Amino acid sequence: MIRVVLIGQGLVATHFAVGLERLKNNEIPDHGVPLGTKLPLKYSEVEIVASYDVDESKIGKSLYEIAKKSYEGPGDIPRTLKDIYVRRGIHLASTRGLPFRAKGREEDLGLKRAVEEIIDEWRELDVDVLVNIMTTEPVEPINDIEELQRGFENADLTASQTYAYMAALYSAKYKSAAFINAIPSPIANDNAFVELYKKSRGVVFGDDGATGATPLTADLLEHLYERSRRVIGVAQFNIGGNMDFYALNMPERNIMKKITKSSMIEDILGYNIPNYIRPTGYLEPLGDKKFVAMIIEYMSFGEFKDEIYIVARINDSPALAGLLVDLVRLGKIAIEREAYGTVYEVNAFYMKRPGPPGSRAISKFHAYLKLLKWLGLRDMRIPE
Amino acid sequence: MIRVVLIGQGLVATHFAVGLERLKNNEIPDHGVPLGTKLPLKYSEVEIVASYDVDESKIGKSLYEIAKKSYEGPGDIPRTLKDIYVRRGIHLASTRGLPFRAKGREEDLGLKRAVEEIIDEWRELDVDVLVNIMTTEPVEPINDIEELQRGFENADLTASQTYAYMAALYSAKYKSAAFINAIPSPIANDNAFVELYKKSRGVVFGDDGATGATPLTADLLEHLYERSRRVIGVAQFNIGGNMDFYALNMPERNIMKKITKSSMIEDILGYNIPNYIRPTGYLEPLGDKKFVAMIIEYMSFGEFKDEIYIVARINDSPALAGLLVDLVRLGKIAIEREAYGTVYEVNAFYMKRPGPPGSRAISKFHAYLKLLKWLGLRDMRIPE
Amino acid sequence: MIRVVLIGQGLVATHFAVGLERLKNNEIPDHGVPLGTKLPLKYSEVEIVASYDVDESKIGKSLYEIAKKSYEGPGDIPRTLKDIYVRRGIHLASTRGLPFRAKGREEDLGLKRAVEEIIDEWRELDVDVLVNIMTTEPVEPINDIEELQRGFENADLTASQTYAYMAALYSAKYKSAAFINAIPSPIANDNAFVELYKKSRGVVFGDDGATGATPLTADLLEHLYERSRRVIGVAQFNIGGNMDFYALNMPERNIMKKITKSSMIEDILGYNIPNYIRPTGYLEPLGDKKFVAMIIEYMSFGEFKDEIYIVARINDSPALAGLLVDLVRLGKIAIEREAYGTVYEVNAFYMKRPGPPGSRAISKFHAYLKLLKWLGLRDMRIPE
Amino acid sequence: MIRVVLIGQGLVATHFAVGLERLKNNEIPDHGVPLGTKLPLKYSEVEIVASYDVDESKIGKSLYEIAKKSYEGPGDIPRTLKDIYVRRGIHLASTRGLPFRAKGREEDLGLKRAVEEIIDEWRELDVDVLVNIMTTEPVEPINDIEELQRGFENADLTASQTYAYMAALYSAKYKSAAFINAIPSPIANDNAFVELYKKSRGVVFGDDGATGATPLTADLLEHLYERSRRVIGVAQFNIGGNMDFYALNMPERNIMKKITKSSMIEDILGYNIPNYIRPTGYLEPLGDKKFVAMIIEYMSFGEFKDEIYIVARINDSPALAGLLVDLVRLGKIAIEREAYGTVYEVNAFYMKRPGPPGSRAISKFHAYLKLLKWLGLRDMRIPE
Repeated sequence: MIRVVLIGQGLVATHFAVGLERLKNNEIPDHGVPLGTKLPLKYSEVEIVASYDVDESKIGKSLYEIAKKSYEGPGDIPRTLKDIYVRRGIHLASTRGLPFRAKGREEDLGLKRAVEEIIDEWRELDVDVLVNIMTTEPVEPINDIEELQRGFENADLTASQTYAYMAALYSAKYKSAAFINAIPSPIANDNAFVELYKKSRGVVFGDDGATGATPLTADLLEHLYERSRRVIGVAQFNIGGNMDFYALNMPERNIMKKITKSSMIEDILGYNIPNYIRPTGYLEPLGDKKFVAMIIEYMSFGEFKDEIYIVARINDSPALAGLLVDLVRLGKIAIEREAYGTVYEVNAFYMKRPGPPGSRAISKFHAYLKLLKWLGLRDMRIPE
Repeated sequence: MIRVVLIGQGLVATHFAVGLERLKNNEIPDHGVPLGTKLPLKYSEVEIVASYDVDESKIGKSLYEIAKKSYEGPGDIPRTLKDIYVRRGIHLASTRGLPFRAKGREEDLGLKRAVEEIIDEWRELDVDVLVNIMTTEPVEPINDIEELQRGFENADLTASQTYAYMAALYSAKYKSAAFINAIPSPIANDNAFVELYKKSRGVVFGDDGATGATPLTADLLEHLYERSRRVIGVAQFNIGGNMDFYALNMPERNIMKKITKSSMIEDILGYNIPNYIRPTGYLEPLGDKKFVAMIIEYMSFGEFKDEIYIVARINDSPALAGLLVDLVRLGKIAIEREAYGTVYEVNAFYMKRPGPPGSRAISKFHAYLKLLKWLGLRDMRIPE
Repeated sequence: MIRVVLIGQGLVATHFAVGLERLKNNEIPDHGVPLGTKLPLKYSEVEIVASYDVDESKIGKSLYEIAKKSYEGPGDIPRTLKDIYVRRGIHLASTRGLPFRAKGREEDLGLKRAVEEIIDEWRELDVDVLVNIMTTEPVEPINDIEELQRGFENADLTASQTYAYMAALYSAKYKSAAFINAIPSPIANDNAFVELYKKSRGVVFGDDGATGATPLTADLLEHLYERSRRVIGVAQFNIGGNMDFYALNMPERNIMKKITKSSMIEDILGYNIPNYIRPTGYLEPLGDKKFVAMIIEYMSFGEFKDEIYIVARINDSPALAGLLVDLVRLGKIAIEREAYGTVYEVNAFYMKRPGPPGSRAISKFHAYLKLLKWLGLRDMRIPE
Repeated sequence: MIRVVLIGQGLVATHFAVGLERLKNNEIPDHGVPLGTKLPLKYSEVEIVASYDVDESKIGKSLYEIAKKSYEGPGDIPRTLKDIYVRRGIHLASTRGLPFRAKGREEDLGLKRAVEEIIDEWRELDVDVLVNIMTTEPVEPINDIEELQRGFENADLTASQTYAYMAALYSAKYKSAAFINAIPSPIANDNAFVELYKKSRGVVFGDDGATGATPLTADLLEHLYERSRRVIGVAQFNIGGNMDFYALNMPERNIMKKITKSSMIEDILGYNIPNYIRPTGYLEPLGDKKFVAMIIEYMSFGEFKDEIYIVARINDSPALAGLLVDLVRLGKIAIEREAYGTVYEVNAFYMKRPGPPGSRAISKFHAYLKLLKWLGLRDMRIPE
């Protein structure tokens, strides 16, 4: 069994929980789960054991109750979700500015006690994998392990950093665990955390799940590179109506997304170009199905200019939820292989900004090949 | 030196000739030439020695004169093109229905004499590579080498088939040559021709140069496959204003393009889906810069439907001309390696319908890797 | 009351029937009904009294049963549709080539008897308005009333023409009625029919309900005209997965749509331009929600070229069904006003090819103003 | 003759000057000039007599020299532009943050002297029309004429406000003139200015020339309104590479554009909806040909959701320059008619935010009808 804890019971967590249960019940096919049944671990081995949040309207509710309110999709909400409850988590002002009332466990107990209590819960739940899918928060990497330690002790870290630190403590003390950082906060891109996980015999994957238009852009750039077309400019707009877009619309949070995508273009093309790639705005009626618009201009042979425009409608949360079905299993596999620290081959495919820090961005196509190789899998479609 | 003959002095031939000379003069960068300077043969080694056509308004003119009339691009027409003349070629009704007056050399001399005369010219010109870029013609594969031979003797072949046959004769008699079939006629996809070239110590690449939206579609499908997204339908429209669209607008010629693209989807995705992918119409004001519109719908995790729409403006002839700069050099390389018959690794990347017959379609990403491997090249961007 | 007969119980008829009943029950707002409550006749006054079809699988079924099978939309199927049955109508080979088993009443009774029987039914049902929404059929205008008469007597007319003729007979003999021809067959664009209706004290509206992208194109061209931008080319592709696209994909039926749209551009812009506007193909997974892709290129001041690309997803049948909610009421109003023959002001707004023959195409903006004026309505948004 | 002064010798001024001269020389057709030859005043009657700017690199240069550097279009720069020079204008920090060295005449002379000197120049030049096309500046309306007066005397106004004030002074003292405010600064939307112009026997047109996607959006919304389709959300992105996008990318300037477009949707549709319509970013390689991407979602009959996506490439400066060819002539006409203050009928069609303050937004289609009516022109395409 792979015992999973969710951190942040938002729409992604709900789609993951609903989809996973339906998958285990054979109610849906495994579309959107990249490796699907190619992985040696079965869907039925994955079990969500707890969820943490700080939104007062969610704490104490079952995932079933939460899905009833927020999940708009085909099919019924699985009744198995009635047994999983949302517990009060660490806040540390991570939801500042967002439109709901929040309170963290540290506000009553102090951070030290709150942390101990939660780690004890994990031990009792015998947790293997923790998935960080809280709302995007503004944060910089620390890079120095001692400074990280001081930050933790002085309650100077953000919520994501604190959870990541806790998962390392848990790994060191009780049982090797994998921390999957699916949001932009630099964890797998923070040398301090990578080192901490190595020492703690834990695994961290990250950062920022590669959904939406950015992986598509990466592969389009690869496509153009392979034809020596000279890209002269790229713009990509994203607008949606879910909480993540609401948060990204706040200037200090938007900056996180911008950083995520900056180095990719140069790494893939071999030269830099002006670009404008970022979440652009919040439009409530779009809901979770975001609107992406994109332009790529390039020079063809003889210096003729071509243009590619892409318009897409993408269900934001299901896309990430599908990746998580692989990632929780890969977390377990990495631990079994004792691949402590972080695993570039996993991050390169599943993350927008793959750790460890300093990693070269590669197209998702190349990342897929590396991932298969790391797993010892062969693509049966391709003739030798 | 690589001594090149052009068959069909249309817009692609003109873009190839102009671009190549400007490239040799360092007037333009090598954008749109996929392998560029990674190949061991230099641009300066490529020399166009003759061109064949049946359009009365072109025969006897220099490529310079022809470019003056039809080439609309940046820069001056290179004066070196004043020395290359269009010769009267084989017609065999290949331009039936098109809006110009045509006459083939066989109409005065009979086919046998015409063929001998032209092969003699090639011998004198010491030709290495022949590039077939005539207008799309309707034609079926023959598959039986004896039937092919009889067809040739009875003047039952199309113009493309006749030229391909002639290049094999030339290879057998005088000097190994490469025939690059950049149009949809099945040559590399005709077992009879592949066998003929093997016997004749010649090389054939084909069929149908992979420009425009089809290779992009292949790589988009690969992208979706790698995420296990379930594609439910694909439509791709193409409309342009050049002679090739004019010809494809004639129902009997359009059928050629439809065949070209049919098996790709199933080979890449592993399942078949309804699709509508074909040149759609002729709109004169678009000129050579075609308009492509596309929809791809797929199911994401949890059975949510996403949609991708692509709109593109692509300069049709330059795209193919850029590929030819590689292909003529690869033709020479294949001959040096004695890779007689056809070379799947080259075809898979550069052609829409890679021969030999029965080859599995693969995404262009995978084809690029195979091509590099065949050439012994390594992609320096990708960490080991 | 406005007593309505449907001719052709396809998807449009079903959407009209379901939507109308839900509208009368206040279950849905009147979105997509252009004049809505501005018309003096209420939705509750409209009553569907019968439906005719020749598809064996539909004859004898209630509209409720048919909707259960084919209607995919929000809300429940209204139970009031259980009382309306599909009767066997006139066939005359109108469904040739379509994928279902069909038989017309004339096949057993002979055309003369079948016609009499059906007109008798209309008299009993006290019919006011007939709506022709059968599948597109290939047909040319007749223009000569005596030839029309002969055609009717010799059973040489198409199904649409026959029904239109029958509605005129009914108007002349029993009660003035309106025939709404929402398909491309030229009825309001046939001088013979316009004259026949005048004589018969009936009203015909037509031809081809103005849904989808064509009215949008008309208004975009008007927008460009008003800025003196010089349009240089227009292409518009349409692809869908409903029966109408299936039928239009048959070359002889497609021609009908092409005719519909041809004169519009010149009438609006004042000059003609190359264009490619037509239904392009059939792609089953798109269902009733068609995909439209469009390019408009124009010259701006100083001879700079701009480009507009439009991609749209439009629910085909609901769009026409919404127009019908107005048209059946306008049919009744026209009869009350004794506006016998046809009414250009209605056709100009609601139809792609407004009759009578020889009418100038105008943008839908201008048509809307003419319609309001004919009705004596004023647009309250516009300051005097 | 109509003697015109340009304020701000940026790209729009250059396109206007080049295009106007080429038009007068019959070198180009009058595409993009909405009323073209329908106006009683000829192109040859328009004469640019001076230009004002504060960019040190432009002052003292001829429009010919400036066009040589910045104009990239078909045709030669007209030599008549050699006789028009850029004079040093009023700065008042209007270019703060922009990437060039600027100095206003007031910096040496003090504002009072500078103003007098410039007005004297206008008197000598016998100016009729002044066109404000400087870079977007952040500014709020004043609304109180006395406060405006004090602002002018205390040098508290922005550059646009100061020029507008000066044109009113000139009108009052010497000769009625028209001030055309083609940028977002609220001048025609400032009660103080409208009153001032009435008193001064001058005319002001404004604000913010209606180019690009906003007028198109207005007419699309009108199109949807006329079909009672329920719009549920609109997003419109704009990105370009000219100085105006550079400036709008500065947060304090972007706010100006947002205000411009806000009330339009509600005025046209009759209800408000969430929307995101604004210049989104700066991407240098796009140059003056901006990229616009748009989504409109609406409910059709029966509560089915349709989607329209628009992608456009629009040459930004030529679009406005074409409108100016009308506006300078309309300025003269308004003065001849003594239509002092502002003219809603002109503003409603040519401006994004038509003055006077409190005017209802109407679609451009309706505005065009109002404009024709004000001018006593009839649309010959529309049957009575």
